[in-house]
Amino acid sequence: MKCLVTGGAGFIGSSLVDRLLARGDQVVCYDNFETGQIEFLKEAQENHNFTLVKGDTLDADALKEAMAGCEMVFHLAANADVRFGTQHPRRDLEQNTIATYNVLSAMKGAGVSKIAFSSTGSVYGEAAVIPTPEDAPFPVQTSLYGASKLAGEGLISAFCEGYDFQAWIFRFVSILGERYTHGHVFDFYQQLSKEPGKLKVLGDGTQRKSYLYIQDCIDAIFTAVEKAKDKVNIFNLGTDEYIEVKDSIRFISEEMGVSPTLSFSGGSRGWIGDNPFIFLDCSKIRRLGWKPMLTIREAVIRTLRYLKANEWVFEARRAPAWS
Amino acid sequence: MKCLVTGGAGFIGSSLVDRLLARGDQVVCYDNFETGQIEFLKEAQENHNFTLVKGDTLDADALKEAMAGCEMVFHLAANADVRFGTQHPRRDLEQNTIATYNVLSAMKGAGVSKIAFSSTGSVYGEAAVIPTPEDAPFPVQTSLYGASKLAGEGLISAFCEGYDFQAWIFRFVSILGERYTHGHVFDFYQQLSKEPGKLKVLGDGTQRKSYLYIQDCIDAIFTAVEKAKDKVNIFNLGTDEYIEVKDSIRFISEEMGVSPTLSFSGGSRGWIGDNPFIFLDCSKIRRLGWKPMLTIREAVIRTLRYLKANEWVFEARRAPAWS
Repeated sequence: MKCLVTGGAGFIGSSLVDRLLARGDQVVCYDNFETGQIEFLKEAQENHNFTLVKGDTLDADALKEAMAGCEMVFHLAANADVRFGTQHPRRDLEQNTIATYNVLSAMKGAGVSKIAFSSTGSVYGEAAVIPTPEDAPFPVQTSLYGASKLAGEGLISAFCEGYDFQAWIFRFVSILGERYTHGHVFDFYQQLSKEPGKLKVLGDGTQRKSYLYIQDCIDAIFTAVEKAKDKVNIFNLGTDEYIEVKDSIRFISEEMGVSPTLSFSGGSRGWIGDNPFIFLDCSKIRRLGWKPMLTIREAVIRTLRYLKANEWVFEARRAPAWS
Repeated sequence: MKCLVTGGAGFIGSSLVDRLLARGDQVVCYDNFETGQIEFLKEAQENHNFTLVKGDTLDADALKEAMAGCEMVFHLAANADVRFGTQHPRRDLEQNTIATYNVLSAMKGAGVSKIAFSSTGSVYGEAAVIPTPEDAPFPVQTSLYGASKLAGEGLISAFCEGYDFQAWIFRFVSILGERYTHGHVFDFYQQLSKEPGKLKVLGDGTQRKSYLYIQDCIDAIFTAVEKAKDKVNIFNLGTDEYIEVKDSIRFISEEMGVSPTLSFSGGSRGWIGDNPFIFLDCSKIRRLGWKPMLTIREAVIRTLRYLKANEWVFEARRAPAWS
C-alpha cells in the first residue's frame, strides 16, 4: 500500500519508514526537520518507493497534497519534549493537538480514512490502576504533553465516528533503540562521556518507568493494524516489566565501564508533571500474538551501543529532553 | 470577589452573572455576542458591580486585559452546538479547545489561578457504565464537541499541575430553564407553535437523556467552588433521573395542550455522534450537600413557560441545535 508518515525523519518515524519500505510499501515521508534527521533516511532515499516531502504539520494544504493517493497515514510528528512543557505551553497545543486536527482534516480532503497515531502512556496521568489497562479509570492530566496527546486521541475518535475513519491509537511507554535521540539514556550517556565520575539525576532515582525497543514497537504497530478491525483500536505498547531510574544507571554504568558518584535533584518526580510510576498493562496487544523480543536491559544496551557509534546525534540535538 | 465570566451573555453564563451579582460579587462579563444576548444582561447592566466587555475568546490579549484584578474565571464560552459538529469540524477546535488554552494563558499572564469550567457529559462518549461516575472507564470520544471539551479539561488539569492553578470542572447534562435558547425543547416548542398537529422527531424517540434546571446547576457550581478544595475538582452535574424523548414530548404536549402526530427520522441516535443514553452518577456533588430542587418534568415546564413569554428568542437564534 501507499502511506504517508508524518515525522518520518524522527526516531520512531524513520524506523517505521524503513520497515514499511522493507515490506514493499510506497512511503511518503513528511517532516519539517525541526528534530528529524536527514541522516536517518539515508537508506530510504535509495529506495524507488520512497518520497520525501519537507513540510510542517501546521500547513494543512501541504499535508493534503502530500497525501494524494495514500491509503493510510501514520501520524508520528509531534513535540515529544515532555519535560519542558511548562516553559513553552503553546508548543504542545500547536504541534500535537492542532497538528493532529490538520492531519485529520487533510485526510478528509484527500479521501484517506485510515490513521495510526502515536499517543502516550502519559495520557493516564498518575494512574489509579497499575499496571494500567486501556480502560483504566478516566484520568486527570498532569502534563501539557499528555493533555495534547489526549486531545489528539479525542479528535481522531470523533473523526472515526463522524466521517467513518478507522484508527489505531498507540499509547507508548518510552521507546529505546537505534536512532534514539532524546530521553534519560541519551542524557546519562552524554554526561558520562564528558565526566565518567559524575552523574546528575533528576528526582530521587526511584522513579519507575517502562521502556520498549523500537523494533518491538514497530512489530506491535504492524500486528495491530493487520489484526484489529474495530473503528477505533486503542493499544498500550510496552514491556511486561518496569525498572527504577537507579536500575537504568546500573545498566548504563556497567556497559560504559564507569562508576559515577550520583547526585540527585531530589523528590519523587523528575520534573513538574513527571509521573513517578509508568507501567502499562499490555495484555490487549499480546492477545493479538505480539510480544517484545528484547528486555528493557537489552534495549538500554542497544541504545548505548548506537549512541557510541553515532556521536554525531549529540551535535544534531542541542536541547535533549529527559523521559 | 471579583470574577470574569466568559460567555457571560449566554444562557448559563448570564444566569450565573445574575447570581454572582446577587451575592455581592464584582463581575466582568466577557462575550462576543455571537450567540449571547444583550437582553439577558438587562438587569445586570443596572448593577454597579457589573462590567461588560465585548470580546472573543480567540483574542488572548483582550482576555488578559479584561481579567485584570480578578480572583477567578468562570469559563463558559463555547460552541455548544453538538448536533452540527461534522458540518464545521474546525469550530469546536477553535471555540472550545484553543479558546480554553487562551483563557488559561491569559489567566497565567494576569495572575489569576482559579477556574471553573463548563465541560459536558458528552466526554463520556457512549459510556460503558450507566449511571456514569466521574471515574468511569477511560472513554472513547464520539463527537467533535465532546472531544473539544475533553481537550479543554486536559489543558486545565495540566495548568493546575504545571502552574499551580485550581480548577472546578463540571460535566453537565443538558441544562433547561429560563433563557434556554437551543436544544430539543426549543425545537419542539417552535415546531408545535407553528403546526400544533405535527412533530418531527430525530431518532426513534427512545433516546434516554438527563436534564438539569439552570438554577440547580448554578447552586451546584457555587457548592462545589465553596466546598471542594482539591487542585482539580471534577463533578458530574445532573438529576438522579432520566427521561426518554417520548416522555419529553408528552410533557410538552400536555403543557401546550396539543396532540401532534409524530414522525420519527428513525435510528437509535438523533444525529451522528449522538449518545442514545446519557445518565450521570451525581453522588459526588450530592455528598457536598447539594441536591436539585426541580424534577426534569418541572424543568421542561419552566422552560416552556419561559419560551412562551419570550418568543423573541426564536428570532434571535437562527440556527437552533438539538441536544
